[in-house]
Amino acid sequence: MSVDVEKLCSAAAAVRFDIQSLPEEARNHALMHAAELLESSADDILSANETDLSAARENGMSKGMLDRLTLTKDRIRQMADGIRVVVSLPDPLGEVLDEFDRPSGIHIKKVRVPLGVIGIIYESRPNVTADAFALTFKTGNCVVLKGGSDALYSNIAITAVLRKALSDCGIPEDAVVLIPSADREDTARFMQMREYIDVLIPRGSAGLIRAVVENSRIPVIETGSGNCHIYVDKDADIDMAVRIILNAKTQRIGVCNAAESLVVHREIEEKFLPVLAKAMKDAGVLLYADEESIAFLPGSEAATEEDFAREYLDLKMSVKVVGSTEEAIAHINRYHTRHSDCIITENRDAAALFLEKIDSACVYWNASTRFTDGFEFGFGAEIGISTQMLHARGPMGLKELTGYKYLIEGTGQVRA
Amino acid sequence: MSVDVEKLCSAAAAVRFDIQSLPEEARNHALMHAAELLESSADDILSANETDLSAARENGMSKGMLDRLTLTKDRIRQMADGIRVVVSLPDPLGEVLDEFDRPSGIHIKKVRVPLGVIGIIYESRPNVTADAFALTFKTGNCVVLKGGSDALYSNIAITAVLRKALSDCGIPEDAVVLIPSADREDTARFMQMREYIDVLIPRGSAGLIRAVVENSRIPVIETGSGNCHIYVDKDADIDMAVRIILNAKTQRIGVCNAAESLVVHREIEEKFLPVLAKAMKDAGVLLYADEESIAFLPGSEAATEEDFAREYLDLKMSVKVVGSTEEAIAHINRYHTRHSDCIITENRDAAALFLEKIDSACVYWNASTRFTDGFEFGFGAEIGISTQMLHARGPMGLKELTGYKYLIEGTGQVRA
Repeated sequence: MSVDVEKLCSAAAAVRFDIQSLPEEARNHALMHAAELLESSADDILSANETDLSAARENGMSKGMLDRLTLTKDRIRQMADGIRVVVSLPDPLGEVLDEFDRPSGIHIKKVRVPLGVIGIIYESRPNVTADAFALTFKTGNCVVLKGGSDALYSNIAITAVLRKALSDCGIPEDAVVLIPSADREDTARFMQMREYIDVLIPRGSAGLIRAVVENSRIPVIETGSGNCHIYVDKDADIDMAVRIILNAKTQRIGVCNAAESLVVHREIEEKFLPVLAKAMKDAGVLLYADEESIAFLPGSEAATEEDFAREYLDLKMSVKVVGSTEEAIAHINRYHTRHSDCIITENRDAAALFLEKIDSACVYWNASTRFTDGFEFGFGAEIGISTQMLHARGPMGLKELTGYKYLIEGTGQVRA
Repeated sequence: MSVDVEKLCSAAAAVRFDIQSLPEEARNHALMHAAELLESSADDILSANETDLSAARENGMSKGMLDRLTLTKDRIRQMADGIRVVVSLPDPLGEVLDEFDRPSGIHIKKVRVPLGVIGIIYESRPNVTADAFALTFKTGNCVVLKGGSDALYSNIAITAVLRKALSDCGIPEDAVVLIPSADREDTARFMQMREYIDVLIPRGSAGLIRAVVENSRIPVIETGSGNCHIYVDKDADIDMAVRIILNAKTQRIGVCNAAESLVVHREIEEKFLPVLAKAMKDAGVLLYADEESIAFLPGSEAATEEDFAREYLDLKMSVKVVGSTEEAIAHINRYHTRHSDCIITENRDAAALFLEKIDSACVYWNASTRFTDGFEFGFGAEIGISTQMLHARGPMGLKELTGYKYLIEGTGQVRA
């Protein structure tokens, strides 16, 4: 299948001013219609999904991946409900972020506006198609989607429904555009479309994100990669430590806010590590222990330098012993991915030092790293977790899909 | 001169946590000392500057460029005073941007923090070296500087003084690092240092900025390029229009917020264009007029399509006639650089439409585009004017050199 990537991107860019100007009511109305149309088009979507599934089965896709790719009536209803939740969220557009007069006589107003055209590159799960559309359209943006090749026909069917919903409402359907291609060259071309796309958000594996960061000429918001650390201080409550580690490591292992690395203060190792060893064994977690901790952790394996930097996304975790909070901080700032890190301690000074010095989007004191999430933060939605510094950091909700502009009013002022 | 770019960048990155933790007083004290040391080291700096100047004269550098490169005792005093002004500005660090409790029991605080390590690539003027250091250090950042090859020895001398000032104050001198190279390959290598540099800000010509945008793997804040438009609506006050256009076009021609393009409503062309023609002739401005306006503009030249997109940075301006505010908006959104655009009108509805629909960092109603400036906006300083959407838009002051992180406090909460 050969597609004209530039034509598709420019089509979205061409209607962005129309989309930016839609009143909140029109955006919400179109989203509600899209939700309904997804449900009433379930048969078409499921039949397209079956095309993807049979190809995937032929290619020997793993059971877990097949499950992620599979749509059902129930999952389509969840997609539609997800859109309805986005409709119910407050509109961030038009918010006055700042407003002031200047001695020159001009009046300056800083207002929240859409980013423009957002590009999203993602992997197998076809529900991202509807999800990304809802979040970007709610915030007055156009979106150009490049989904995984495995979900190509599912994504084509879902996008067709979304576009029909817009056109039913008299809104330009190019507000959502899919690049309907399984060709990697097309993805590479997409990443060069700086003229049409204001920001590119990759959603998926560390490999996908790295490829986008390395090859995109469009500004990227780096998301997702999480080597989250938990530091058990000498003054930690041991029961609390075990409870938080179990939750952060095992509640859901394939997610970016799961804990991957443990750092333990030397003064608590004797009391804490045996308790940890038992809890981890019961939970089926394999520990990669450094030279000092391995004696206290029967059944663990010796950690290599690489283990400290690893995002396992599995029932595995590295363990490192340190002599002080300062040493813990230096170790974490060296190996983490600036996503989420946690200190467990009853000592207020140690906590304050950790919160100040750890350079992550989210720094926790006595709570699980699993809370790094747009819903848990109360944003009502989430397009991803940013692990970079610019623009947005941590969970990205609706506000993070907007920018601002300055409106300046005068009465003929000129610069002296 | 061969330099190890990676080593220089990693040196700055290695001390960033020390710099982030400096209290406001320590940062301000070091900056005051740097200002004094610049003045007392004037002879060394001037002698290094003379090395650059004689090489530049030999290479036949233009008079204007030579002037930009030249330092004097007075200009060094201005540099020092510039640093003192930055000291006097309020510290943006530590500001609590948001704070809230969640039903899960966790408490979330969003606080302003330094970006980390900022890279700056700039051209001839050596005063940028001191200026960029002051702004980045005040905000708790480290900075890696790559100046123009013409100012190499001046920049080396200035950076040596800044580093000495830091070390006198017991602060790691690698908070400011210069890449002391005139080799373009080193600039190319610098742009790949994503591991050490959090954001790259190019300051200089459109060509420099384009090269950085196209080649950097570090997130870039695009600055500077300004094809600013002024639209004279049918309901404009003609005297005001001429006054604003003269100011925006001629008050300083080499700057990014100067007006380059004029758009005129057809219903006012007969009354307005002859007045404009005279004023522009008196000011020595050459107009590039479209087919319709050329009849009213004696002495003008015929505009080509390219003229509408041109940033002249000269006593030149394009003129385009339109039939409506909507047409003006479409024309401007097509040809501008999203920097600053202005409508001149007494008509509130036309102004509202223009302010809403023009997609620029700064949109003006009855005021000169020359006000797009960190000082005129009251930021007290300016590192550049962003023309991109992500992170910061328009004038960038101290706050725009910061990001945020979330601090989350719990009492043992885990995710359900």
